[in-house]
Amino acid sequence: MLGLKLPTDPRWATAAQHHLEDLLTDHAYCEQKAASTAISLLVTYPEHTDLVREMAALAREEMSHFELVHQLIVQRGFVLGRERKDEYVAALQLHFPKTKDRNLRLIHRLLVAALIEARSCERFRVISETLEDEELARFYRGLMASEAGHYTLFLRLARETAGRDQVDPLWEGLLEYEKNVVATFERPQHIHG
Amino acid sequence: MLGLKLPTDPRWATAAQHHLEDLLTDHAYCEQKAASTAISLLVTYPEHTDLVREMAALAREEMSHFELVHQLIVQRGFVLGRERKDEYVAALQLHFPKTKDRNLRLIHRLLVAALIEARSCERFRVISETLEDEELARFYRGLMASEAGHYTLFLRLARETAGRDQVDPLWEGLLEYEKNVVATFERPQHIHG
Repeated sequence: MLGLKLPTDPRWATAAQHHLEDLLTDHAYCEQKAASTAISLLVTYPEHTDLVREMAALAREEMSHFELVHQLIVQRGFVLGRERKDEYVAALQLHFPKTKDRNLRLIHRLLVAALIEARSCERFRVISETLEDEELARFYRGLMASEAGHYTLFLRLARETAGRDQVDPLWEGLLEYEKNVVATFERPQHIHG
Repeated sequence: MLGLKLPTDPRWATAAQHHLEDLLTDHAYCEQKAASTAISLLVTYPEHTDLVREMAALAREEMSHFELVHQLIVQRGFVLGRERKDEYVAALQLHFPKTKDRNLRLIHRLLVAALIEARSCERFRVISETLEDEELARFYRGLMASEAGHYTLFLRLARETAGRDQVDPLWEGLLEYEKNVVATFERPQHIHG
């Protein structure tokens, strides 16, 4: 699914439903960080007109998802908790070597973003198939399509910027790397484990 | 207007229309920074449920304004330029003394945000009354109401958090300070001069 090399163990989601408040807080911040990443990309590459357009719309969409998750948190009598560092994302960001090539840095960032969206989409599917809570299961099923769309968007932007010949081997390498990263994160309180 | 102590010299807007590409770029980043500030506030004060709700919606609205400005930039054959530090905002942020009181820091941030919105609203009015370009004049007239709404929102949030007795003298002091700050910034390429 989405090129991912290691499917999420369904036991992760079984455990996750016992940590709903933490999981929802974590999810809310995933959406906020996705919005902030989109904003950061358009500020860093303002001359890429298509990228700017797509990232501005994406930031808006991610904030609307944040609002939906926050609404669920409030409805259930929870309170949004503190933000934490996403160690899965931090680990992914170590894969590509640092480079002074501005264009290549853009490709790296787009691919990492594509992968985070792909893994989120896969996790949302697992959650939606495992949660006994019908409302939440439906909610996560609904979000899956958006995440898949974002994954496609980031991959397309990378390929349009640098061509498939350059991008596809980088993408393949990142997928292989992620297999080992995701295997080390299994905490049920976090969307990315 | 909006409590501001010094009206903008109409000559600023007369000069501004000769720097449209720079002015529109600057304006686009004002909207982006407003979105980023809203996101930063909700991440820093997640336990303030009303604030979180308002800031998430505001971030979305500011990004939609960013998109409108970017669309104008592209339509006119311009390209979004590089982001620059907003020295007017940086100067405003020096007014309130640093404090370890987390709640007071929130009040300070809300009041600074209210003032930036008030000044933006006033500048948009001056622009809309001065620009010979009808499309742009209409555009800025349309945005005035939003900025006024945001000014009201930030002031209301501050008063709800700390009460008028504490907030109103702080607000009055900030307005006095801003009078001197804004007088030193008269560059026609920048929304805040």
